[in-house]
Parts: sequence; C-alpha cells; structure tokens
Amino acid sequence: MMKQMTIYDIAKLANVSVATVSRVINSTAPVKDSTRKKIEALIQQYQFQPNAMARSLLKKETGIIGIIVPDLTNPFYTEVLAGAEQEALTTGHTFLLTNSVGDYQKESQYLSIMREKRVDGMIFLGGRINLKIGDEELDQELIQHASTIPTVLVNGTVKGNALTRVATDEYTGTCMAVQHLIECGHKQIGFLGGEMHMSTTSTKLRAFKKTMREAGLEVREEWILTDSFSIYSGRKQMEKLLQLADKPTAVMCVNDFVAIGAIKTAVDHELTIPDDMSIIGFDDIPLSHHFIPEITTVSQEANELGRTAIQVLQKLMNQEKVKKHTVIEPKLIVRKSSARLN
Amino acid sequence: MMKQMTIYDIAKLANVSVATVSRVINSTAPVKDSTRKKIEALIQQYQFQPNAMARSLLKKETGIIGIIVPDLTNPFYTEVLAGAEQEALTTGHTFLLTNSVGDYQKESQYLSIMREKRVDGMIFLGGRINLKIGDEELDQELIQHASTIPTVLVNGTVKGNALTRVATDEYTGTCMAVQHLIECGHKQIGFLGGEMHMSTTSTKLRAFKKTMREAGLEVREEWILTDSFSIYSGRKQMEKLLQLADKPTAVMCVNDFVAIGAIKTAVDHELTIPDDMSIIGFDDIPLSHHFIPEITTVSQEANELGRTAIQVLQKLMNQEKVKKHTVIEPKLIVRKSSARLN
Repeated sequence: MMKQMTIYDIAKLANVSVATVSRVINSTAPVKDSTRKKIEALIQQYQFQPNAMARSLLKKETGIIGIIVPDLTNPFYTEVLAGAEQEALTTGHTFLLTNSVGDYQKESQYLSIMREKRVDGMIFLGGRINLKIGDEELDQELIQHASTIPTVLVNGTVKGNALTRVATDEYTGTCMAVQHLIECGHKQIGFLGGEMHMSTTSTKLRAFKKTMREAGLEVREEWILTDSFSIYSGRKQMEKLLQLADKPTAVMCVNDFVAIGAIKTAVDHELTIPDDMSIIGFDDIPLSHHFIPEITTVSQEANELGRTAIQVLQKLMNQEKVKKHTVIEPKLIVRKSSARLN
Repeated sequence: MMKQMTIYDIAKLANVSVATVSRVINSTAPVKDSTRKKIEALIQQYQFQPNAMARSLLKKETGIIGIIVPDLTNPFYTEVLAGAEQEALTTGHTFLLTNSVGDYQKESQYLSIMREKRVDGMIFLGGRINLKIGDEELDQELIQHASTIPTVLVNGTVKGNALTRVATDEYTGTCMAVQHLIECGHKQIGFLGGEMHMSTTSTKLRAFKKTMREAGLEVREEWILTDSFSIYSGRKQMEKLLQLADKPTAVMCVNDFVAIGAIKTAVDHELTIPDDMSIIGFDDIPLSHHFIPEITTVSQEANELGRTAIQVLQKLMNQEKVKKHTVIEPKLIVRKSSARLN
C-alpha cells in the first residue's frame, strides 16, 4: 500500500496549522501570500489529493445522497434509481445506496448510518412509508432524522404528511386500468397481489372498487386475492383463482411482477392470454414490453419519478421553497395481455 | 434544522482538546479519570452521536465499501449485490454504490470519488475489466487506485492479472450448454448477442466453437450474430437470423436478456419454442424461471459470486492472504426453451 499524504502531513511540512492548509484548499479565508505559496508548492510536490472527508468536515458537506430502497431486485426501483442518478450527476452528488429488503429494523440501522455518514440529503423509496396504517414509532424516528437531514419520500408518506414527498397518482392510474377492462366489455373482474397493510395495495383496491361500482358492476370478494408483490405471489394467487368454479374474465394486478406470475400460471393451465382472460399489471417495468404476451400496464413514469425526487431534494438541500407534495401523472399502456371480451 | 453537537463543541464545553474527546470515544489511549468522566457526562447530556467521519478520520476507516456496477437494470448484477449485501452486513459495512452504465469516463470519475471518500475497499463489477484487449491507460488507472484501496474484480481482469479477482468459469459453463444442445441432437447451432470487444463474449465464443468442433460440427459464421447484451439486441439479432434461407435449429445466447429477446422475436414470427428452435441463455436471472417458455440457462451462481467477492475483500482489508483468483463453478439448468431435435 502506498502511503497517502494527509492534510496533517502537509501542515507539518509547511509548519502551519491544519486550519491554515484547509483555508488554502477551500479558499474559505485569506492566508498570507508566502504561506499560501509554500502550501501550494507542497500540495503540488506530493500530489496531495485533498481528502473529501477532511474537507467536508470543515464545509459540513459530504456530496453524498443517501438512498433507502426496499427491493433492488424489482426493476421498478432500478428504473427510479436510473432517473435519480442522471439528475444527481448534474450537481456531482453520489449515492450511498442501501437495500432494506422491506425490513423496518434494517431501515432504522440504515437511517443511523446515513446520519453517521452525514449525508447531505436522503431519498426514502419505500418500506415503512408505505404502511396503510403508519406505525407511530417508526414514523417518529424518520421524522426525527428528517429534521437534521433534508429528506424526500417517494410514493409514500408518514403520519400527518409531515415530510416532503413525490408520488405517482396510483389511485387515478388504477381507475384508468379498470376502466379500460370495462370498456373492453368485461364485467367480471378480479384483483391480484399486494400486501393488505401496504398503502399501495389499499389505494389501488379503493380505486378498483370505486370504478367497478360506478360502472354498476359487482365487486366479488372471492376474486380479490392479495398476498405480496412478487412473481411467486402472482403465480400462487392465480392458482387459487383458477380453482374457483366461477372465474373472472379479467384481473387487475397490483404490479407487473404479479401480472407476470399470473400470466405464467394461467398459461401453465392451458389458458390463452388474453383470449381466455385479460390480465393487467402496474409499473411498466421494461420487461412488460418483452413478455409473451406483452403486458398491458400503467406506467408510473419511474425515470421521471426518480429525476423529480432528486430535483425536489436539491431544492431542500439549498433551503429553497418546495411543494410538500409533487404528483406524477400515470399513463395507461395498452398492449397484448388485455382484449375485448369474446 | 436541529443543531447537531460536534466533537468540537464537546471539546470546548469540557475545556479539553478534540484529541482528548476522541481518545475517550474511541478508547485509543488512557485519559485522566476526572477528565474522562466530565466528557462522558457531556456526551450523555447532549446525546452526542460521534460523527462517523470524524471518528474514521482518526481510525482511518470509513466502514464503506465502494461498488462500481455497469448496469443496475440487469438483474444479474442486482442478484450479485444481494449476495454481497448479506455478507457485508456481517461486518457492518455499507455500500457506496455507483452505476457506470459501462462508460469508462464515468468509471474514472467514480474511482476518484471512491478515493476521495476513502472507502475501506472496492468491488469492481464490470466495465473496463471486461475488455477483451485491455486498455493500457484504463488498466493502469485502476491498478493505481487498487494500490491504495483493497480491490476485488468480479468476472473481469486487468493486464497481467495484476489484481485479485472472483469469477464464474464462463468458459466451462458455455461448453456445458452447447454440449446439452448437441446431446439433444442439434447439429446446426448459432450464437447470439454480446459485444465482440468484451471478454465475456470472446470467452463464450471460444468455448462455443471448441465444443462444436470437438463434436465434429461445423461453425457457421453467418449464424454468429454478436451485438450487445440487451433484450433489444436479442430481438434484433433473431430478426436477422430468421431472414436467412438456411437457419440453425438451436441458438446459444450470450446471456438471459438476449435469450428473452430472441424468444420474443421468434414467437412474434410464429415459431414455437422449443419445438421449432431451441434457445439457451446464460446467467439464470430469476425471470428465466418465469418466462414463457421457461429458459434453459447456465447459472452463474450470482448470489454466491457476490458473497464470495465480499469474503475475499474482507480478507484483503484485514491484510490476510488471499488467492489471486477464486473460481465459482457454473451449473447447467435445463428448462423448457430447449428440447430434442424433432
């Protein structure tokens, strides 16, 4: 290992204090001309690279944005991250990215780490902020951290909407998807996937039920099969649905992963999609365009969501005024997993 | 914003030097009993949270492992990361994760950032280290960084194999896949996808050609259609392949993404997979198990690869002896996109 020069070494060689070297590096205060030249010569001679940490200790900035993601294996989140990264490059920020796997204890651990690492700002991409009924203690912990670290929540909130958030309008998106099925002539429609205690599930279910009722259609509780957000969940719930004597002609899925699983199991059971059943997803992950059949879905505009979250965070970090709640409009993308009822 | 106490504030209140407070926090040297008690009381009173940066400046450790990933939207990498994260939690390290999108200039930028942030170690997951003919300057830059930061390369190398690496045996994996097709009775086999200047492509192509020749089969250059690693690439190259008068009965794809695209386009052209053509991928991304048809592939053991990379890095960081080259054995996973030749 090569020995790296530190600010302390430079100070010693120049026979000045660390603060003086820091002043020269950061131009934060005037330094006597001869002293400055001596320090600059040493920096040159030893090719000293100012330590970002030492510098940020004085400037109180780290150039790091902390990000807490609940599931890096879900392409929706990596698309949001791709958008966020594009935007963060414009201000030279890098990401301290952590994967909580939806575990609230890990989230707490990562929140402490973010504070310890003195990140300049934080994006919270899901987990406790997606609870239908928020947990008082978990919310308080997050609000507490957000009181010292500028924080933006994506597609979630805390008690009293106390924190700044950017979100897709999932309610409207679901209404659009269900309306599309109704316009295709479907009257018997089910809903698959999602955990009931997560707000994304309850929001989508509310929109589903309201759209059905407004069209004068019956909501059949036995066709509402929630579970989780994974491909496996879609497979398992479609398996249950297909065992019913009376089946729906169409299903709305909580996300594209569940739709992929649902289609897979339906096809395994010799059904043709969409002829025998229309199946719709939510998110528009890149794969929904390449699956067989291509999946009708609602685009969350993941890339824009990521870029917007960083834009809002940058304003917060600069102590500019921001809207407490920025809404991204969803888009219905009609592909080949939905069709007119025969 | 709440005012956070710093180590400087505590030192001032205790009327001692910052170094003394640091000694108490880190137990690095004895401090007079009365002084220690005074400092501990202040830490207690103000609920002072020792700043990780300040502490690590003294300990010269940051607790951060820097990771450079070429493509976060490819599930292979997120699976490697999931394994790496599990392992890193055992030593309390967190990841400074950066996405280079395969751009060498961005890689250089991120390497500088890693050095600036004084990461404890670094995992390089692809990009310049995958070049078939390494670039002298890019290699030198990386070797230079690795001389001050313990570094592990995953599935790649630099000139003279100068750095520590962990890799799947892609050559053997490809031989297994091609052998499987040959055993299914296929004699006319093509190869799709991958960039020719990347070593993963040339390694797999070498294995492909060698297995074909050893079986006495002809390698047809017009059936070798390289391009890139994306789903789109698979679609485009299968489109070209299907325009040929004489087509292969089976194709080996450089990865699962290319296989997904190839199957999608073949099906769009009314082919039935595997009856009309066998198509094999590489990587075993989770989706290959849920695609229609389920994809025969070679598992890179992504999770194990990630865990192993961190284990090797931890040894490097502890200045323990490590093998310069750790090999992970691939596994052939036969599913439904390949079948006996009719």
